[in-house]
Parts: sequence; C-alpha cells; structure tokens
Amino acid sequence: MTTERARVVIIGAGFGGLFAARRLAHSNVDVVLIDRNNYHTFTPLLYQVATAALDPSEIAYPVRTIFRDTPNVRFLLGQVTAIDQDARVLTVQTGERTMHESYDYLIVATGSMPNYFGHDRFADYAFELRTLHDSIRLRNHVLNLFERAIWEEDEAVRKALLTIVVVGGGPTGIETAGAVYELYNHVLLKEYPHGPLHTSVVLVEQLPHLLTPYPPKLQTSALRQLQSLGVEVLLGRALVALEPGAVKLDDGSELNTYTVVWAAGMKATAIGALLGVDLARGGRIPIEATTVVRGLERIYAVGDVAYLEDAAGQPYPMLIPVAQQQGQLAANNILAALAGESEQAFSYYDRGTMATIGRRRAVAWIFNRFALSGRLAWLAWLGLHLVMLLGFRNRLNVLINWAWNYLTYDRSVRIIWSQEALPGKSSHQQ
Amino acid sequence: MTTERARVVIIGAGFGGLFAARRLAHSNVDVVLIDRNNYHTFTPLLYQVATAALDPSEIAYPVRTIFRDTPNVRFLLGQVTAIDQDARVLTVQTGERTMHESYDYLIVATGSMPNYFGHDRFADYAFELRTLHDSIRLRNHVLNLFERAIWEEDEAVRKALLTIVVVGGGPTGIETAGAVYELYNHVLLKEYPHGPLHTSVVLVEQLPHLLTPYPPKLQTSALRQLQSLGVEVLLGRALVALEPGAVKLDDGSELNTYTVVWAAGMKATAIGALLGVDLARGGRIPIEATTVVRGLERIYAVGDVAYLEDAAGQPYPMLIPVAQQQGQLAANNILAALAGESEQAFSYYDRGTMATIGRRRAVAWIFNRFALSGRLAWLAWLGLHLVMLLGFRNRLNVLINWAWNYLTYDRSVRIIWSQEALPGKSSHQQ
Repeated sequence: MTTERARVVIIGAGFGGLFAARRLAHSNVDVVLIDRNNYHTFTPLLYQVATAALDPSEIAYPVRTIFRDTPNVRFLLGQVTAIDQDARVLTVQTGERTMHESYDYLIVATGSMPNYFGHDRFADYAFELRTLHDSIRLRNHVLNLFERAIWEEDEAVRKALLTIVVVGGGPTGIETAGAVYELYNHVLLKEYPHGPLHTSVVLVEQLPHLLTPYPPKLQTSALRQLQSLGVEVLLGRALVALEPGAVKLDDGSELNTYTVVWAAGMKATAIGALLGVDLARGGRIPIEATTVVRGLERIYAVGDVAYLEDAAGQPYPMLIPVAQQQGQLAANNILAALAGESEQAFSYYDRGTMATIGRRRAVAWIFNRFALSGRLAWLAWLGLHLVMLLGFRNRLNVLINWAWNYLTYDRSVRIIWSQEALPGKSSHQQ
Repeated sequence: MTTERARVVIIGAGFGGLFAARRLAHSNVDVVLIDRNNYHTFTPLLYQVATAALDPSEIAYPVRTIFRDTPNVRFLLGQVTAIDQDARVLTVQTGERTMHESYDYLIVATGSMPNYFGHDRFADYAFELRTLHDSIRLRNHVLNLFERAIWEEDEAVRKALLTIVVVGGGPTGIETAGAVYELYNHVLLKEYPHGPLHTSVVLVEQLPHLLTPYPPKLQTSALRQLQSLGVEVLLGRALVALEPGAVKLDDGSELNTYTVVWAAGMKATAIGALLGVDLARGGRIPIEATTVVRGLERIYAVGDVAYLEDAAGQPYPMLIPVAQQQGQLAANNILAALAGESEQAFSYYDRGTMATIGRRRAVAWIFNRFALSGRLAWLAWLGLHLVMLLGFRNRLNVLINWAWNYLTYDRSVRIIWSQEALPGKSSHQQ
C-alpha cells in the first residue's frame, strides 16, 4: 500500500534530523530516521548532567516516543557505514547485523564532534561534552576524584585531584566552568566535611576574550561574572601538552590536574567522507542554499555537519536554531521537488544566543541587538530552555530538579553510575 | 581529639550496613562505612529499573547524603581485599590506590550474589538483578532486542528476540516476569506499530509451586495472577543448558531466547573467605545470636552474608528486614561491649512478605498470618515501598513516575544508556 510513496531517509536524530522528520510527519512520504542512539539528546544541558544537577534521562527523549503517533516515520537504531549513490542504498550496521536501506531522498544530519585542531592525542585524556555518554563519564570521574581526595594525605596530589581545567571560552566552556564551580564549592564540600579540600576551576581561552561572537560589553560581563563566582580565567593562553596529572600552556606554565574538559571547538562528524565530495573547513559538507549537497542530487545536509555561507560570506554557525531551520527547509524542499515545485533558499531567523554562568548569572544577546546580563539574562535562559525541552514529563521533572537545586543548593542525583570504568570514548560517527 | 574513641568499620552500605551505621550515628564511636559504590541501592525495585519504569537514580541514594549531618560517620569508596585480624587492619582498594584502615570492631554486611548451584557457566549469558548495574544492563539489552526485532524478517528469529525466560519462582522472579510482560505488551507494542511482534514471557521454577515460604493458598493465587496476566509458568522444570539463542530444560524441551534472567537463588558474597572461618550453606558466615562471627572476636556479620538459625533450626532468610534488624543489633552489641554491658541475642520481628505481579496484582503474607491477594495486596505493596524509600526527593520522584505510568501505561524513561556494550558482569565482592 505504501510501495509507491517516496522514501526519505534521515541520518541523525539531533535537532536538524528531528525537525526534518517532524516536518515530514503525516505527509505523503515514508520516512526512516536512523540514529545510533534510541533517544534525542537535549545537548544544551549536557553540562548539567556532567555536574550531577540533572539525571541523564531528563535530557534524553526516546525517538519512538516522539513519533509514536506518526505512522509514516519509522525509527532504525544503527550506524550508516556506506552510501551507494547510484543504487540509492545505505548500508546500516545494527549490532552485529548489516542492513540495506533504499532511499529516494536522503538528509544527512549527523552533527559535530570535538575538534582538537591537530592535537589529536589530547583526546586520549580530555573529557568531552558532546553526548550523554560523555556527560556520565565526566560526572563519574569528578565524583570519583572527590572520593579519592578526601582520603588523600599528600596536599599536592589532593590539590591536583580537585582542580578542573576547562578549555574553551565559548558557551559550553563557560557553562561547564560555572556549573563545576558550584558543584565543587556549594554542594560537595558540604558532604566532605573532613577536609580541608581546596578546589579550583580554571578556564583557558586562546583568544584575548570570551564568547567570540558576542559584543565586547557582554564578553567583559561574562568574564566579570565568572571571576566573581570564583573561576580563574586565563585569556590568550593555549594548551600545548596534556597528560594525566598535568597540562602545559603556551607560556610555559603548568597546571596540575586530572580533569581537562575540552570545549574549544567542534568539527563535522566523519560521514562526509562517505559522500565523495570535497569537504569545507572543519570537515563540513558544502551545501547549496536549498541545503542540497553541492554537486549531488537527492542528498541534503543540515546543521553542524553542513557548510553554507551567509550573504556576508560568513559560514552559518554550529547552533541549534540553524540546524532546526535547515532541517525544516530540507524537508520542505524535498516535498517541493516531489510536487514539481521550486525549492527555497535558506534564510536564517536569528533570535540571538545566550550562556548561563552558574545559578543566577548569565549573558544574553537577544536578536543580536539587545544585551542582557546577570539575573535577568539567567531567567531568560531558564525560561527558554524549559520551553525547548521536549515532552511534558521531562519538562516537569527538570523543573522539579532545578527548583530543588535552587532552594537547597543540593544535588540529589550524585550517583557514580558504575565502578567499572566506562568504555573509552563514544565513537563520533553520527 | 577523636584518637581515643573506638573505631567501628562497616563493610557494605546495603540495608544491614546502613542500619548499623545509622544506629551508631551521633554515638561515641568513629564509624567508617566502606562500599564499592557511592550509593545505597533500594534493591526491591531493581526490576523496575530493568523494565524502564524507574530511573536508576530513583532507587539509589548517595551514602554521603544520608550521613551528611553525621560527623562521626565517614564514607570510604573502595573494596576490602584483606583482613588482618591480629593487627586489626583492613586492606582497601580504591581505584589504583591501596589503603589500610584499622578497626576496633568490624561489621561485615556485604550481602549476597546470584547462586547458579553448580551451573557457573550460566553466568556468562544470564542476566542478574542484584545491582543497579545489572538492571541497566538488562534494560539496555531488552530495548536493543526490540529495535532489532522490529526490522527482523525471519519470524523464528524475531520470536526468539522477543522471548524472555525468567528462572526462579520467588518474589524477584515473579515481579520481574510480571513487569517485563507489561513492558512488552502494554508499552512497547504501542511504539512498534509496524509489527507483528509476538512477545512471550516464560517463568521457570524447579519446585512444583511458586513462592516457597508462602501458604499454598497464596502460591496458587500468585500462579493464577501470573497466568491471567499472560505469563507462561513452567513448574517443576529446571534449566540444564543455557547459551545465546536457546535454553534447554530438564524435560528435553528447548526455548529459543536471547534473554534469561537468573532469579533462582542467592549465595553469600565472597568476603567470608577473608575471615578464615568455616562457611555455612551458600557460603554464609556462621554467627552467634549476638551476630558476632562464630569463633572470632570483634568481628560481626549481618544480613544475607551471615548464617544464623532460628529456634526451629531454620536459617533466617535473606530478607531486608532480617538484615536491618541484625545491623541494628550488631551496632547495639558493640556499644554494649564498649560500655561493659552484656550483648543481646537476635530476635526477629517478622512482619511478613509480599510480592507484586505487574500493576494491580500482588500477594502478601502479613505477619505470616494474613493472606492478601489481588489489588488490595498491590496497594499494600505500593504503600510499604514508598514509605521504605529513602529521602524525600526520591520518594516524590518515584511517586510521580509511578502515577504517570499508572495513568498512561507509559514508560517515559525508555532510554538505552549507551550503544557500547556495558562492561561484562559487575564483580560481586561486597
């Protein structure tokens, strides 16, 4: 009964893929949505899972639940390992099983992964905050170091155990540094009364200022807010070496630490290599304004994995609203192509950006015109993220948790998930 | 300032160890509580985490939070690897670090682990429900099999993917079978509309009846309730072989399945071997009525790991109330010994037992005199477990989740935690 309908395959259930699939829901096409996880991750709050403020399940939502009432969208748990453009067939690995899925149209929305800018060895020891798995791994690590520190008699070792270095002064770096500082100083110290424990959070940024795309006024405000919280900010410095116990900076100084969080930049996931096109900066897939991959037919790419320049020649940033809007556009353009209508070009509706710094501190750059900082910006951040979170129950639980944390300065989900070391890094493809 | 106080070390933060530590809180001794996890696990609800009804953190509570306002109780994350009874010193492994902790009195409360009764190879493939880790592993496994089954075209393979065999007709087996059946048939089928998916839950019990210690009337009621739910119950049968894809029973029949949950019995954790005493049945440590280990001084054992017979010559069962009451008694007797007073003998206050079978079915044997079954027993079960759960927040969250599940037949925490296989079995010592 559905054999004559066009088949659209979407790779990736992040914000880009999800918005594409939602646009195609209940339309006259068959959709297969492929992801290596069975859930969508609300990535802006990963750092709150890492700092034990939220439970993993509070920022993850099963894909099947999202599309439960959408019979034309099917979910496939797996990883795409090959794309045959002539036959229009994908090879998908699901556990030990290899499957083949045909497509009439393909949307690639596999997102991004940390970029070490040539220092790939850093990945062996650095912690990342890209996946739910990353955030659980960092949480376990920090809590385990606290358990070691409380019984450690060598003061220098104890200090290193309790020092966290965050690399990167963008929103993720700032939010992580702020949240870790609060975890350290307001919460954990309360439960480790046999100290003395001296904790320290250091934020390292290569540029002479934080939050590059923000106006100078907000950059300065973010710096001041971080410092007033207690975070040590090192501007104009870069890491040149990283191993367990110590990092070296480019001015020759050294920081003793067992915890380095890498938030210095992102690059596209590796799927571009399967397409046989020349990739742009950061391994991103060059697309036309319609989001179709440059030089290809029937294959679209959206979000972080895609490269498109705006009218001023600047690439669109790796931000959730870009991914959402491109995902919707790709879906619209596929429907237009099927209807024999002309495809539309991408036009970004930019509502601005914001970053939170601990509880009740933040900066917001609304519509790229209005600068907010401090508590008002924090409330705007809080409201926006609550509205964005998917699903009633998740929203309610997150609200309860946040309210609880706010009232009590408590973290009730401070569980070290497994004594066994979690398996290495999560793989990044998709 | 505290060097002259007696030092009591408790190994294990389960129900026995926790109740001992609570009894010693604010008393005139220093307490060190050792566990390999930083949380106490509310084990009666592990099967609900395994069936994605509850989040892991809802049944786990950080030990430090429990003893936050108890300065004389310190927590040590680690595993005891040796006990030097002459020097009264424990060797504790914490990550890569080896520590030595002295004690004046020791309470061993490391609990139990699954018993394969000679079929140790079964452990390679069977799933267990003893730790939080076990329950997350089983949950991931079942959800992954569903994702495979929905795309599987071979009907026989699909049927095997959707068959779960629970071994053991005690409370854990019954509760797991009931909960898995509901996960299968009410919840997941709703989200896998492209079936047809035929699921099947089989409960295998070696004895000719379920729930051995219950009166026959309740045993029959439990059987009837399971069958009315849709669980296939095989009484008087035992597993003779177990490998991925199939189990063999002692009547020569075979069941094709990739999921076997072992709930057939427990034995003591391995710590008994460190004490140099002859162990009783199931590797349990023989104790005197005071809970002191038979033949030793200053070392007490409580709960599942300890072996004590009642007046009728029957060993006390491996049940939470026994562990709680013995833990309190050991603490009391240590305080009595320190005060030069005489130690008391164990006297079990038995409130009875109960087991739930899915939603709104249960059996309860209250004070071992009053038999309840059906919805009334279920309400009693629900109330008791809510009251037992530690900590206000956990209780509130569990209540919200349960109410949500009850109203919607929904499971909102259906997340597969990590695509990477979780590391093998959790180790059982402690």
